[in-house]
Amino acid sequence: MQLLKAPPSPRKHPIYSRIRDTSLHAKVMSADAAAALFRDDMVVGMSGFTRAGEAKAVPLALVRRARMHPIEITLITGASLGNDLDGLMADCGLVKRRLPFQSDQKLRVHINKGSVSFIDQHLSETVERIRSGQFPRPDIAVIEAVAITEEGAIVPTTSVGNSASFVAEARQVIVEINTVAPASLEGLHDIYMPANRPVRRPINLVTPKDRIGVDAICVPKDKIAAIVMSDHHDSFASLDAPDAETRAISGHLTGFLLDEVRRGTLPPGLRPIQAGIGTIANAVLMGFADASFEGLTMYSEVLQDSAFDLMDLGKLDFASASSITLSARRHANVMARIDAYRDRLVLRPQEISNHPEIVRRLGVIAINTALEFDIYGNVNSTHVMGSHMMNGIGGSGDFARNAGLSIFVSKSVAKAGAITSVVPMVSHVDHTEHDVDVLVTEYGLADLRGLAPRERAAKIINSCAHPDWRPALSDYFARACTRGGQTPHVLEEAFQWYAKFRENGQMCACHTACACA
Amino acid sequence: MQLLKAPPSPRKHPIYSRIRDTSLHAKVMSADAAAALFRDDMVVGMSGFTRAGEAKAVPLALVRRARMHPIEITLITGASLGNDLDGLMADCGLVKRRLPFQSDQKLRVHINKGSVSFIDQHLSETVERIRSGQFPRPDIAVIEAVAITEEGAIVPTTSVGNSASFVAEARQVIVEINTVAPASLEGLHDIYMPANRPVRRPINLVTPKDRIGVDAICVPKDKIAAIVMSDHHDSFASLDAPDAETRAISGHLTGFLLDEVRRGTLPPGLRPIQAGIGTIANAVLMGFADASFEGLTMYSEVLQDSAFDLMDLGKLDFASASSITLSARRHANVMARIDAYRDRLVLRPQEISNHPEIVRRLGVIAINTALEFDIYGNVNSTHVMGSHMMNGIGGSGDFARNAGLSIFVSKSVAKAGAITSVVPMVSHVDHTEHDVDVLVTEYGLADLRGLAPRERAAKIINSCAHPDWRPALSDYFARACTRGGQTPHVLEEAFQWYAKFRENGQMCACHTACACA
Repeated sequence: MQLLKAPPSPRKHPIYSRIRDTSLHAKVMSADAAAALFRDDMVVGMSGFTRAGEAKAVPLALVRRARMHPIEITLITGASLGNDLDGLMADCGLVKRRLPFQSDQKLRVHINKGSVSFIDQHLSETVERIRSGQFPRPDIAVIEAVAITEEGAIVPTTSVGNSASFVAEARQVIVEINTVAPASLEGLHDIYMPANRPVRRPINLVTPKDRIGVDAICVPKDKIAAIVMSDHHDSFASLDAPDAETRAISGHLTGFLLDEVRRGTLPPGLRPIQAGIGTIANAVLMGFADASFEGLTMYSEVLQDSAFDLMDLGKLDFASASSITLSARRHANVMARIDAYRDRLVLRPQEISNHPEIVRRLGVIAINTALEFDIYGNVNSTHVMGSHMMNGIGGSGDFARNAGLSIFVSKSVAKAGAITSVVPMVSHVDHTEHDVDVLVTEYGLADLRGLAPRERAAKIINSCAHPDWRPALSDYFARACTRGGQTPHVLEEAFQWYAKFRENGQMCACHTACACA
Repeated sequence: MQLLKAPPSPRKHPIYSRIRDTSLHAKVMSADAAAALFRDDMVVGMSGFTRAGEAKAVPLALVRRARMHPIEITLITGASLGNDLDGLMADCGLVKRRLPFQSDQKLRVHINKGSVSFIDQHLSETVERIRSGQFPRPDIAVIEAVAITEEGAIVPTTSVGNSASFVAEARQVIVEINTVAPASLEGLHDIYMPANRPVRRPINLVTPKDRIGVDAICVPKDKIAAIVMSDHHDSFASLDAPDAETRAISGHLTGFLLDEVRRGTLPPGLRPIQAGIGTIANAVLMGFADASFEGLTMYSEVLQDSAFDLMDLGKLDFASASSITLSARRHANVMARIDAYRDRLVLRPQEISNHPEIVRRLGVIAINTALEFDIYGNVNSTHVMGSHMMNGIGGSGDFARNAGLSIFVSKSVAKAGAITSVVPMVSHVDHTEHDVDVLVTEYGLADLRGLAPRERAAKIINSCAHPDWRPALSDYFARACTRGGQTPHVLEEAFQWYAKFRENGQMCACHTACACA
């Protein structure tokens, strides 16, 4: 005889475990119903930072709606969105203005065409601008959450980004409860917002471990316009495995930092480390696994695989960031074992993770990736050939300017050698030479501290440039010096290599029409 | 019968009133004797910031010595030195390396020739670099003082600059007692140094008025190698009177700020104001005299005439800075009445006056001068024609990056119209578009907040450029847009105007060989 199974208790529905303030259950609706709340020309703030923790169902519903009935919005996020959302929202004409970051293939086509107005902003600054009335407040905030607490507070998922300020400033809030995000993420967040001026106090954070805020984002109940249930995962980060070049970069940098420890300018645990996003930064950090550092900490904006690998190896004691972005290799594993990292991890608003006050106080070691840099140490992080946006500046400026040590890494050439990453003059400046202490390529490391521009040039060319390009760079520099100056240049030649690339698909230092093609 | 007059009491000699720790009297010596303490290749830290409060007698003695027996040093200061000292020290070959600032006609000739290595640094950062071992400690610090207290502490004169950290880090200290600096300067200073990492606490300064340190610079007695008496005055600032252009710039800026007050994004007393050095910044600030602002405060690096004029008018409640630099018109008057300003004035180390932590916390309104800016809002503060150093970057980067509102001002043309200050692409970038909110020339104001680069271009050309140059700028921009991009450029033309100036002494936008000469 078969026993009758009791029907599942309605209390087991995720709505009960995930929306613990039961008075809010009445606000649960479909994503399409929530998407109907948007109006043309609205300013929308969405969660999401480095493709982690973005709202997923509501943006997709908005795309469906925009495809049928065109609607345009200004979209502000933490940083990049996953699940192809930035591309989908741009392609359907939904997004007409976008800030403060992007790294999406499709969105950047619209940006470079001029059909999406993109404001590339230091990531710590966006919410300052909104709160001070210098940029319009969001009409609607859409925030992915693990849960809503008994008190009605929103628990973010894998990123905090700008969500807390969006919720505080928006007229309406849509919460997207992600039922596949591990409930155990709750407790990892530390939500803090500086008071509005002029009564702002110091931010009382003096080590990466300090908790200064609360666990979840408070919101007046009547602001919550909708709650949507979703079960979409974060996108996986696509990280290439370390290769010979990234291993060499990591080797140079590790050697340099060990020397600094030996000289006594850095302690054996270094200073809190910030590392940019992407394959090179991840590989560089992984190189620390084999070095004799001890008790490392991170004060960064994003934690990639390498942070968890270093924690597993006992090399990294603590990591503070605004998001967790993992590859397919690491995602399930870390999410299933989040409790194992609970005491060594905190996720903060990007305003705090990237805050000049804290970055300067901690003397952060900032490691960011350059698209190209020039012989004087100016760095281009964003623009291909001076005009076309690749990825936004992100937090690199927040960190590089205020860091105790500002390092930029890059491979020495791109496109199989057709492009040198070390150029006479960068075609776009994101970081000036004042903010760049150390440059590293697979060929070597240039320690620029205490050097005047002409000294920097000699060191950068000889330490970092690909050997094939050194003669042309040295020739440019020598001829520039005959004209004099603190930062000698031959302005009419400075961008000639780009023009050659435009013509021939190959940078070239010839001074006249050439047969390089 | 004639009464015999008693000989003057030795106690009336300034040595008694100015060196109140009498145990130090034995260290008084001539400037030439003190100059003999220097050795070849030493690193020397000298007081002085914006031509105020520099040691005067010892550098002159060093020049005399260097002319007879060549000697080379690395010279670190607060900022620029007065009394022609930067020029004299460079001309005699004494200075081989110089940081972190200069604005001297003669010194810059050496820098641009490459015979002096100049490190152009954010002014808040120099002492961080020294204290953390990233730049060599000074062998000798030479500090101008009003007095030495009973406890043996050094009371600075008209600037604090980097003096406190120089004293802390140097092996030997030479104090230059300036007997013509008013004794009443004592008490104006607030000396605070952040602790070395990793135990650094927040800087507990939340309004410009807050005092967080002590009145004078403490120094172990045995570090004082010499005390030299001097009676040289600070140089006067050479400020041109406001002209039609600077009045127009001031008018545009005042109107903009009043609009912000009306909109509610700024209070009637604005936020603490920083203003750069020089005629334009001084004139802009003077324009505030006639506007309906109330209870203004300054959190700046230097106070020029305008600050005292505004205090006298009751417009400016309080001013915090690192130095006081006055014109001949104002110098004697202010120095004689310093008590009248005592409650409204504080002088801090430049690390604190320019500190990212404080600048961001206070939401400073930063007003700095551009040499040129481009159609996307990038600013060149330092390099003429991209290569030749004019003045250093100074504190403009400390403020512009971290300010609540970052404003740059410039006249629209230079050299009687031969040069436009608004160009397709600046020939040197000191401040990227990310750090520039508002641009002002005599023709108008471009509010760039919330605008994407292409939108910035249209606004900058139409609001700020000289009408004679607008067609050429618009033409460049339109042709650049046909190539696409977030920040459209025609790289091979971007610097063509400079090349024309080089050839013809007149910028010109012709695309081919032209008859402009």
